Amino acid sequence: MQQTTTSRPLIMIVNDDGIQAPGIRALIGFVVADADVIVVAPDSPQSGKASSITVDGPLRITPLPDFKGARMYAVSGTPVDCVKLGIHTVMPRRPDILLSGINHGSNSACNLIYSGTMGAVMEGAQLGIPSVGFSLLHHGIDADFSQCEDVVKRVVDDVLRNGLPKDVCLNVNIPAQCTPEGIKVVRGGRGHWTDEYTRYEDPHGHAFYWLSGSFVDEEPDNPETDNYWLGRRYATIVPVRPDQSYIPAIDTLRRRYE
Amino acid sequence: MQQTTTSRPLIMIVNDDGIQAPGIRALIGFVVADADVIVVAPDSPQSGKASSITVDGPLRITPLPDFKGARMYAVSGTPVDCVKLGIHTVMPRRPDILLSGINHGSNSACNLIYSGTMGAVMEGAQLGIPSVGFSLLHHGIDADFSQCEDVVKRVVDDVLRNGLPKDVCLNVNIPAQCTPEGIKVVRGGRGHWTDEYTRYEDPHGHAFYWLSGSFVDEEPDNPETDNYWLGRRYATIVPVRPDQSYIPAIDTLRRRYE
Repeated sequence: MQQTTTSRPLIMIVNDDGIQAPGIRALIGFVVADADVIVVAPDSPQSGKASSITVDGPLRITPLPDFKGARMYAVSGTPVDCVKLGIHTVMPRRPDILLSGINHGSNSACNLIYSGTMGAVMEGAQLGIPSVGFSLLHHGIDADFSQCEDVVKRVVDDVLRNGLPKDVCLNVNIPAQCTPEGIKVVRGGRGHWTDEYTRYEDPHGHAFYWLSGSFVDEEPDNPETDNYWLGRRYATIVPVRPDQSYIPAIDTLRRRYE
Repeated sequence: MQQTTTSRPLIMIVNDDGIQAPGIRALIGFVVADADVIVVAPDSPQSGKASSITVDGPLRITPLPDFKGARMYAVSGTPVDCVKLGIHTVMPRRPDILLSGINHGSNSACNLIYSGTMGAVMEGAQLGIPSVGFSLLHHGIDADFSQCEDVVKRVVDDVLRNGLPKDVCLNVNIPAQCTPEGIKVVRGGRGHWTDEYTRYEDPHGHAFYWLSGSFVDEEPDNPETDNYWLGRRYATIVPVRPDQSYIPAIDTLRRRYE
């Protein structure tokens, strides 16, 4: 375990699309000139893994060749496994900031709860590390991550300088195929998935299903929400608190049970 | 897809330990006399899966023999997959309540974020279904789930009668090896895992790791927290809100970015 000897910030980078994804490569490129960067990312795609941890099996962490000066490690697990095992094994000290992404696709509104990108970010926050997730609203192989550079640099610089409110991490979404008009700090919009499944039959006549469905924005005209501004070419920042205890409901329920 | 013809409540039951686990069998037994019960649970253990969804592969749902009058279906996926696919394929209508568990082990404090039991509950809440997760603080095969019966029945009866606050679901933990003294409605206690990993070498001399560690309660003397009361032989109810946007931080951050 080496000690970092410079006074440059130490950045840990994670993602959920896997260490070979263009999004994480772009993110590394945006920050590596001014920081010591250690990347600990899944060895395979981990989309939709939320805050999953591997409790019932072994994990490996494997060094890969440096990329643009960043040290690279692949983990045979989930995004949260990467944070936990990376800090346990290869990080020389607690990082000054944890970055996750850039995710290939949106993590706005209720998508947050399924997001492996944000699972890693919430794990960082629980460990007391200022943590930020970035997502570009584009799934395709032709996604242009260069559009994210200004937003990423502005947020990383600000968080390194000013920190984050206690127990809060950031969910940053960036509109695709445009230069963002600016940044809006908002809450996640209310919405849901229709949760359709496509039904197939295997060669033996047995059914199987594949998740599809489409997102329904329940408040498309509300400027307090992330999707409102993403649709208007702004990047959005949603402050996220990993602790989901809902204090305002305690008194109501206490009268029913105590 | 059959229509339920009685006026008895329709209960959907899910878990994360798998459809063969003693905990789910106990839960079914507690409620099946007074309700129509449909069980859609994972075909294998899914502990630590949080709100994971299967996006990149197929799912199967397989009918099993009835258990004590409950209809039983096994799903080749996560707890959230069970909720989504069960509602899409085998539920005759939206259930009156969704129950998850009884989990083999605690989901108190920060364990909530990794919990597949509570992942299913939060999915139910997002679909507008009153949803409750139950966990017994005992991992062993000799766990006595009969201790949970009074708490389960009291909470299910109350939620069926009175509903839950909008967008809120319940995380119920039950102390092991005792008859609970009563029920306390509290928030999740602050704590963290030490996240140790046990290091091994495979027969070829390559390292692999297995998650271990122990839980550190950061506020053991605070009666506003679940672990305080669980340690004093009370069952605890924590109201949980799936939406993690943290509104109080928006204004602070807005001044930095807009």
